[in-house]
Amino acid sequence: MGEKLETVLQGTPVSPGIGIGPVHVVARGFSAPEVYHIDENDIPHEQERFRTALEETKLQLDELQQKIKALSGEEESRIFEAHLMVLEDRAMLDRVADAIATRRQNAEFAFYAVMQHFLEAMRRVPDPYLRERTADLEDVCQRVLRNFRPDEAPRHTAPDETHILVAYDLSPTDTAGLNRRHVVGFATELGSVNSHSGILARSLGIPAIVGIEDAVLDIRTLTPAILDGYSGRLILHPSEETLARYQELKDRKEKVRQDLEAQRDAATATTDGRTITLSSNIEFIDELALVRNSGAKGVGLYRTEFLLLDGEEMPGELEQSEAYTRLATELAPHPVIIRTLDAGGDKLPIEPLTEPEPNPFLGWRGIRVSLDRPGMFKEQLRAILRASAHGKLAVMFPLVSGLGEVRRAKDFLKECMDELSAQGVPFDEKLETGVMIEVPSAAVIADLIAPEVDFFSIGTNDLIQYTVAVDRVNHHVADLYRPTHPAVVRLIKRTVDAAKDAGIWTGVCGEMAGDIRLTPLLLGLGVEELSVGPHQVPRVRRAIRALSHVECSDMANFALKTGISSEIMDATMDMARRYYPELLD
Amino acid sequence: MGEKLETVLQGTPVSPGIGIGPVHVVARGFSAPEVYHIDENDIPHEQERFRTALEETKLQLDELQQKIKALSGEEESRIFEAHLMVLEDRAMLDRVADAIATRRQNAEFAFYAVMQHFLEAMRRVPDPYLRERTADLEDVCQRVLRNFRPDEAPRHTAPDETHILVAYDLSPTDTAGLNRRHVVGFATELGSVNSHSGILARSLGIPAIVGIEDAVLDIRTLTPAILDGYSGRLILHPSEETLARYQELKDRKEKVRQDLEAQRDAATATTDGRTITLSSNIEFIDELALVRNSGAKGVGLYRTEFLLLDGEEMPGELEQSEAYTRLATELAPHPVIIRTLDAGGDKLPIEPLTEPEPNPFLGWRGIRVSLDRPGMFKEQLRAILRASAHGKLAVMFPLVSGLGEVRRAKDFLKECMDELSAQGVPFDEKLETGVMIEVPSAAVIADLIAPEVDFFSIGTNDLIQYTVAVDRVNHHVADLYRPTHPAVVRLIKRTVDAAKDAGIWTGVCGEMAGDIRLTPLLLGLGVEELSVGPHQVPRVRRAIRALSHVECSDMANFALKTGISSEIMDATMDMARRYYPELLD
Repeated sequence: MGEKLETVLQGTPVSPGIGIGPVHVVARGFSAPEVYHIDENDIPHEQERFRTALEETKLQLDELQQKIKALSGEEESRIFEAHLMVLEDRAMLDRVADAIATRRQNAEFAFYAVMQHFLEAMRRVPDPYLRERTADLEDVCQRVLRNFRPDEAPRHTAPDETHILVAYDLSPTDTAGLNRRHVVGFATELGSVNSHSGILARSLGIPAIVGIEDAVLDIRTLTPAILDGYSGRLILHPSEETLARYQELKDRKEKVRQDLEAQRDAATATTDGRTITLSSNIEFIDELALVRNSGAKGVGLYRTEFLLLDGEEMPGELEQSEAYTRLATELAPHPVIIRTLDAGGDKLPIEPLTEPEPNPFLGWRGIRVSLDRPGMFKEQLRAILRASAHGKLAVMFPLVSGLGEVRRAKDFLKECMDELSAQGVPFDEKLETGVMIEVPSAAVIADLIAPEVDFFSIGTNDLIQYTVAVDRVNHHVADLYRPTHPAVVRLIKRTVDAAKDAGIWTGVCGEMAGDIRLTPLLLGLGVEELSVGPHQVPRVRRAIRALSHVECSDMANFALKTGISSEIMDATMDMARRYYPELLD
Repeated sequence: MGEKLETVLQGTPVSPGIGIGPVHVVARGFSAPEVYHIDENDIPHEQERFRTALEETKLQLDELQQKIKALSGEEESRIFEAHLMVLEDRAMLDRVADAIATRRQNAEFAFYAVMQHFLEAMRRVPDPYLRERTADLEDVCQRVLRNFRPDEAPRHTAPDETHILVAYDLSPTDTAGLNRRHVVGFATELGSVNSHSGILARSLGIPAIVGIEDAVLDIRTLTPAILDGYSGRLILHPSEETLARYQELKDRKEKVRQDLEAQRDAATATTDGRTITLSSNIEFIDELALVRNSGAKGVGLYRTEFLLLDGEEMPGELEQSEAYTRLATELAPHPVIIRTLDAGGDKLPIEPLTEPEPNPFLGWRGIRVSLDRPGMFKEQLRAILRASAHGKLAVMFPLVSGLGEVRRAKDFLKECMDELSAQGVPFDEKLETGVMIEVPSAAVIADLIAPEVDFFSIGTNDLIQYTVAVDRVNHHVADLYRPTHPAVVRLIKRTVDAAKDAGIWTGVCGEMAGDIRLTPLLLGLGVEELSVGPHQVPRVRRAIRALSHVECSDMANFALKTGISSEIMDATMDMARRYYPELLD
């Protein structure tokens, strides 16, 4: 094949950093086959391999059908007729043949990609009957893939060492399953700056880019590559020169990182002496070490919906309690704020709880789900209470829109306390209670909610989304999603003021908290706590330590009178540029 | 068959009133067959009719396939293989056979319903290839339906006289197509109080109920019925006694209506002399007569997206201008506020503009679409300007979320004025400009937007929806959609105050405006204009004339301090009950 030319694929950067290593291409769903380009000469061979695999599958299905017929009768065996029909579907056959011939894909991947396309579409169909057929299709698909003779085609195994992950899309579940020690970057076809995988990548400190067209189809596993999370470039077969240049850049960035880490234990206070609590967001218990290493003062947001990852249901009370206890004990004396289940919306799809909704972001999610499922909710509350005996915990309710929800949630908490008392189980009777301020109505009546709770945590992602009526992952309108929208700035201010009047504190745990361009604005608005991804802690600490609170307040006062988001962004950026230019990429 | 027993089906009332007449069942999409129950003895006959229709269709398709093959070759003829496969799909055949045997449906309807189920699911799939296959399926479906011999089965024709419409669901397009003179009520399986069809029914004054399970399947066309839009009951085969009772109720309600109409020309002022502008919402030009008869002072909201009903694109500039001119001249000297295209979201699906969005309500709609399609937007603006020479028009922009959008929209308007001036086309150079306040961010920065426009019109439906983060048609969360949510009350107040400070007026054109339980609250908050459905005008007029503005203000001041929606609802309801009990159903 000879030396490959350096090729640059342009995507959208979503998480900064440089990753260097071979590519590993994965596809979603069940056991995905490797993808590789075939030579023109091999086209007939691949078409033949496909036919053989299909024929073998048909024979197996026929055989199975006969067996089932003998055992369970005609009716039951009909399912295989549907399977057989799939294998004879003209449209499918044509598309696979075409992918082999014109896209030069290996047969198993061509087949897999075509089927994924169908499956992906069918999975979104809100019809139980069609969804059932999806499972059938998946089954057929798996059978066919198994019938490709592995010895006929070269195979690559998933690398157990440093690699750049290339995928069509990464669901929260996929991202969670990443081997974070080995993945030095990821590139996807789908996704956006504000999609879940983008957020997670930044939080985990993995360089990432999205929007690489046909990445899964065109890039071959083991291709040497550089992923540039600053400019959004994926460079395949980099030249020695390119490699040297990037290695140098990577070293320089690493130096900044080390400088930041040296300040690990420095106080997070402004130059004029205002202390800000800097804590960390956490999704997985195994991130505990990261949190401790970052020097964060506890956890400002533990997303319990990630407990759902292993199954379709929440773990039981005692199992949850164990997880929370580990957090409490390992981070003591620092506090850990546990957010109750925030499923639904763009979060994990948990079959027993969710069903397709026309506007999931305006649907059944967060505290709404918990209040509608008291059994599940109380299990979680009791688990938190049990763990509260072992350290400093607090509980926080997501997606609160009104006073009634807060009171009902607190009533459940009280009930749980009574139940545990009756059983003689110890817990923190002064467990602090907070609410997320992320629905506009909650911000507007923050003064009425504040007397009911011990703290507010502003979830800026949702707050922006609802306030401006913009789905941040919808590319048609994503440019209207602006953290510095004057209405958002005002609602944050209103929330902070209401909290101060009631003698409670306000934190920010959304994306804005980790965006150091916005640190001057948030400090100026009077926010007292920032909870960010463990990897963001050092940079945010450095930013806080470089700023004067008085100057931030003056800037925020300007922002509160301004009608144009970009002017507000310019004002806060200007301060960031003056006080910590080296942190801005 | 004998005398049928009176049967009561319970649904959810969405539009008050009594409708009496025979039922007419319709189904969505292409030429729907009649539905009727078959006798047990007829099951084999119906199964046979189905088989015959299928066989005939297969023969036709085979024949077509041969012809196409001869004309265009193998490739083109393959489409018919897919069609034939559909007709042999085991799952489909089983379901139809089952519907005939156990649901006792006539064969064509059983087939139609099963296919609709598939089609409906497939239409929602965001995959162009699958959607293409939907069209194929529809085509096959239509062929099969045509092959049922009409002479073999009794048929009913659509009644040209008074009837109650029963449907699975009514899209805005369906509702628009209603023969409003003949439909005395409608009942659907889907829908909710706040769905588009519910809103339209109330606006048109047609009694309506939703949520009647299996209505389309179980109810037979021509069944005599009473639709009770107060209690949500659909009474089939009513007894003479029931009929008499309802006729009496209907007469009594009619009396109230006549009393209200007698006040047609009375001033819409409170008992303490505060004048409120009472105008009407309008969707179709042929509602002009309704508006005039209602005594409304002009049109507060003309929804131009209904111009799209006849096609997939907006009519051209001159055609639009004609429609607007008719409004302007026929309602002069009263003003007509024309809202620019508000497509997207739950509005009309216009193929060239929209594509499936994961959260359409937070997506590309309203002014966002217009600003992204300057050609279309400017055509509309020029059409409005042209018409403005013939009466008193104003233009209003929907879904504004920030100052930038208002300024850009006004820049386009200015450009259009310049273009028309250059052409010597006359227009109103002082054309008033307003914005809908329906996105929370717009309400929060109403003080910054007010100096840019001549009026505000609060779109309460969306404002509630976004403020509380609730999709009002999602039954899981619909009970959180509360017009008296304290945050909504405060945002209305904030908007009104901002407008007053800038010397402009504020109206309400959402559902709240027509809900007479809320008239005391809206008046108390300082709203100066209410725009309601033509049929609601008389009741709202009566409500305004019964209230004291001072008392309303006191009540609103209480509401602004209250945290619980139900307490606010009780307070405004209490006033309504005291001052116009006869209007409350």
